[in-house]
Amino acid sequence: MTIFSPRRAGAFACATFALLTVPAAHAAETGPATPDAIVAASPAGDWQAIPADELLVMTLAPAKDGSSRQIVIQLVPSPYSQGWVDNIRKLAKAHWWDGTSVYRVVDNWVTQWGDAEETKPLPDSLRDIPESEYITPLGKAISLSCDKAETPQALCDSYAPVAQIIDGWPLASDGTSRWPVHCYGSVGVARNLSPDTGSGAELYTVIGHAPRQLDRNVAVVGRVIEGMTYLSTLPRGKGPAGTYADPAMRVPIRSVRLASQLPEADRPAFEFMTDDSDSFAHYFALRAARHDDFYHVPAHGVDVCNVPVPIRARKTGASAE
Amino acid sequence: MTIFSPRRAGAFACATFALLTVPAAHAAETGPATPDAIVAASPAGDWQAIPADELLVMTLAPAKDGSSRQIVIQLVPSPYSQGWVDNIRKLAKAHWWDGTSVYRVVDNWVTQWGDAEETKPLPDSLRDIPESEYITPLGKAISLSCDKAETPQALCDSYAPVAQIIDGWPLASDGTSRWPVHCYGSVGVARNLSPDTGSGAELYTVIGHAPRQLDRNVAVVGRVIEGMTYLSTLPRGKGPAGTYADPAMRVPIRSVRLASQLPEADRPAFEFMTDDSDSFAHYFALRAARHDDFYHVPAHGVDVCNVPVPIRARKTGASAE
Repeated sequence: MTIFSPRRAGAFACATFALLTVPAAHAAETGPATPDAIVAASPAGDWQAIPADELLVMTLAPAKDGSSRQIVIQLVPSPYSQGWVDNIRKLAKAHWWDGTSVYRVVDNWVTQWGDAEETKPLPDSLRDIPESEYITPLGKAISLSCDKAETPQALCDSYAPVAQIIDGWPLASDGTSRWPVHCYGSVGVARNLSPDTGSGAELYTVIGHAPRQLDRNVAVVGRVIEGMTYLSTLPRGKGPAGTYADPAMRVPIRSVRLASQLPEADRPAFEFMTDDSDSFAHYFALRAARHDDFYHVPAHGVDVCNVPVPIRARKTGASAE
Repeated sequence: MTIFSPRRAGAFACATFALLTVPAAHAAETGPATPDAIVAASPAGDWQAIPADELLVMTLAPAKDGSSRQIVIQLVPSPYSQGWVDNIRKLAKAHWWDGTSVYRVVDNWVTQWGDAEETKPLPDSLRDIPESEYITPLGKAISLSCDKAETPQALCDSYAPVAQIIDGWPLASDGTSRWPVHCYGSVGVARNLSPDTGSGAELYTVIGHAPRQLDRNVAVVGRVIEGMTYLSTLPRGKGPAGTYADPAMRVPIRSVRLASQLPEADRPAFEFMTDDSDSFAHYFALRAARHDDFYHVPAHGVDVCNVPVPIRARKTGASAE
């Protein structure tokens, strides 16, 4: 997407081009490659389906105009944050979130949901997760080099020795362990003071600049991949810590289910661009060095949160109906 | 601000503490230092008033509930981006924005305003600014070291050799020049394709993760310091490039004035924490290494957009009335 001033038709055409998915041939005719054009031109083999038990479907009460509000969250895959992810699956299967609400919204920080009154009993089956599980030990030490020539997709990072897109997720590493990082749209587990780590019942998503200082201090368990604007445009709270002072402002949550709990015909289906594909390598390179009709000074650098893994709805018998 | 799960009263107390400005004595009693506590405890001498001709006051049409919506933008001081800032002062003095609108909102990107139809003539006095003015040459070369021990407030950056908070602003440098960078709330000049640089009539503010790839490609001319939520919570646009497809969704701009154009009694007054003060050094250090009742793993690193320069309303005869 480009920032533009629509004074001239050309600008509209360019900005629109950046928004649309166009075939490779068209992209080639239209000008220098852009990340969006690479995504549009990528072969089917460069995409991988997201398992139905890694998709959480949250349905809010309809908006004032009656329109429905469905949010889809992709859960972090094994081995990252799995203690909390397991709890979240148990909560979804118990229909625990049904009747709870979105009760806290802080500008440039987070939108948070769960049981605002914190009186609803939690399933006994939930596990208490130790802080040690914020990170995942690596089998063997990895290189910490963020020299572009040596490891083109390893990023020098402000918060960790190195950050990379691996297994479809932005991860940071200290060489002996890895952890999922906070970016815009990341979903994390709200908690009390350390050493509490949260159960997974109270969740938040990031609605501003990535609060990377939370990495390794709070569990990142997923990311919003559909319906983000239903959470990012809510009125900011004026109560303690940005909660809604007036309970009437809370947004009711009708239901939260794993896609795998839904009838096949009702399951949302998504796929992500695999990070070991040629398409992703090209996409990543362009994200780190934009040079096209709009960008004249490539940064030759990028932070891990500005390389969002391409994710799109998947055409299936069900979703195509 | 802390993310918290209000299951226990203690968490509320902690989160509230992080939101309130508390006297130093109280902060000391309450526990480990936090950035907010440092700001609250800083002496008056560590703050500097923002000149009235560096404040832009934008008044939107009242909200549906009748409440007023005033936004205050701090303009980047000399010598950065001054060609565009000069144009913006001329546009404000000509009342050019009165009757224009906020017409484009893209999630995790920008909210943009000006003349949606692009038919309103611009003042003849505006200057065409060359791309060379996106950066400001330095009198003499500066160190590019981001070694914490050597230059504690110089940050290793993903988009430039070094980034720092200087003159009250987040700036990046290549050693021979500096430029203001894009962060959440930054205000920039929308433009057409390169080499167009925009006049300053069409402006945007960042409502998501810092799009640092725009640095040196678009002019950063200021930052929103009051009323940001009036721009960040607007419905996202569904038209081309995120413009509002339905003109009725545009938010009317009643007026835009420099504070210096307003009667003294009506002028908003703000001050910022000077970056050469002891308070700022302490604030910066804590931002880069949170270690308190909530944070148990300090990052020992921070990106320049996560060290927002403390800014607050200034008690004056006028504003205290």
